Amino acid sequence: MLWLSAHPSSGSLNAALRRSGVERLHQLGNHVIESDLYSMGWDPVVRARDGGRAEQVPTDQFRVSRDTRRAFLSDTQPIEVQVEQQKVCDADALIIQFPLWWYGVPAILKGWFDRVFISGFAFGINPETGRKMRFEQGPFVGKRAFVVTTLGDRESAIGPRGKSGELTQMLFGLLHGTLAYTGMSVLTPWALASSDFVKDIVPVQQSLWNRLDNLFTDDPIQYRPQFTGQYTDLWELKEHIRPGESGLDIHRG
Amino acid sequence: MLWLSAHPSSGSLNAALRRSGVERLHQLGNHVIESDLYSMGWDPVVRARDGGRAEQVPTDQFRVSRDTRRAFLSDTQPIEVQVEQQKVCDADALIIQFPLWWYGVPAILKGWFDRVFISGFAFGINPETGRKMRFEQGPFVGKRAFVVTTLGDRESAIGPRGKSGELTQMLFGLLHGTLAYTGMSVLTPWALASSDFVKDIVPVQQSLWNRLDNLFTDDPIQYRPQFTGQYTDLWELKEHIRPGESGLDIHRG
Repeated sequence: MLWLSAHPSSGSLNAALRRSGVERLHQLGNHVIESDLYSMGWDPVVRARDGGRAEQVPTDQFRVSRDTRRAFLSDTQPIEVQVEQQKVCDADALIIQFPLWWYGVPAILKGWFDRVFISGFAFGINPETGRKMRFEQGPFVGKRAFVVTTLGDRESAIGPRGKSGELTQMLFGLLHGTLAYTGMSVLTPWALASSDFVKDIVPVQQSLWNRLDNLFTDDPIQYRPQFTGQYTDLWELKEHIRPGESGLDIHRG
Repeated sequence: MLWLSAHPSSGSLNAALRRSGVERLHQLGNHVIESDLYSMGWDPVVRARDGGRAEQVPTDQFRVSRDTRRAFLSDTQPIEVQVEQQKVCDADALIIQFPLWWYGVPAILKGWFDRVFISGFAFGINPETGRKMRFEQGPFVGKRAFVVTTLGDRESAIGPRGKSGELTQMLFGLLHGTLAYTGMSVLTPWALASSDFVKDIVPVQQSLWNRLDNLFTDDPIQYRPQFTGQYTDLWELKEHIRPGESGLDIHRG
């Protein structure tokens, strides 16, 4: 499995939870690879070099989707991108750990998805079968995804009627639009609210361990499959399913 | 006003829309400052240097919120952060333009918010009044925010029942959790769907101009004020308001 993390301080609560979480997974007999983005010095910015290291694309002609796909298919991506892609291929689960900044992932982590999850690799058209690779036809079907996050907000602020919105809704673009989109089975995130006020790490750690212990047995979020007739050709939920309703939760069920 | 943009290619549709949008705003008599993050070489990664350039914080002791606030208050932030903060202070409106990648902003733009919108500047406690600076008490009250984005999805996929979720919900963390949080009046985003298939830029440009022409007259999204009794002390919407409902839209009205 792959433990992806993104906190700038090795002395942080996030770093302590990472170390103890990885250790726990080892104890359970898992092989854990890490991508600790800060310590790797990961560059999160998509640039023309992602369009192919051999035939460098001029910046004014760089077309992100087209050129990164071509680089993937022609094996000319930057090495650091290929290394991360191989880690994803080898992993049966991704743990994605980060402090919630501005209700999203830190830039260094956003840019891991921007650079690594490119067309051809994480989605797109399968060149052999011509099939659309996404959701239940995605390339990462069979892998699990587990988001682990800490936030300053109190617990109730991310509850169903909390002012920040429910975490699964606030992070819909990551959970559904990214992780489920590529085919992964997405678990309910583990989130530590009021994380600036943790006095004792022991119960926090135990709570995280409980989730890690059940990484392969907990039921994932039941997002609707996309190719079994629940959606129209225009990618709208069909009228007879939750008729008249809208909102992000209609895509679960 | 400040036009913030984040596309890696100067030959892109985004770049063309940026140039023509800025030109339009000039024609309307506005003073427009630009932060074109790619051409600036903006570094989006929060690191220990954001905790103060004078007394460099060791990486293992860096505490993001505490140390960046201290750096702000003691005038020891990195110069490039101060420059961006001054631009925000001087602006009566922010235009935030980006291609939608993985249902969010590109890393280089996420890291602009991560580094520039720090405690003390964009939110926190006002040191003089002791007042909480957020939402209708936020430091950026009176400024307008307008998101301009392009996406690969077709229009219906981001409609009320579209598989990607409505844009205002998918971007709730940016629109509500970031822009409205700091006090700005947030306009409904302008979004160009199926942007890979634009054949003629003229109608697209005109559609964007129509919105720019009304930047200061269009009604902003009516997010609920947070300090007028609609929320409990735990930051939940009070029971009598939209009773029994949940979802991100309950925070509008």
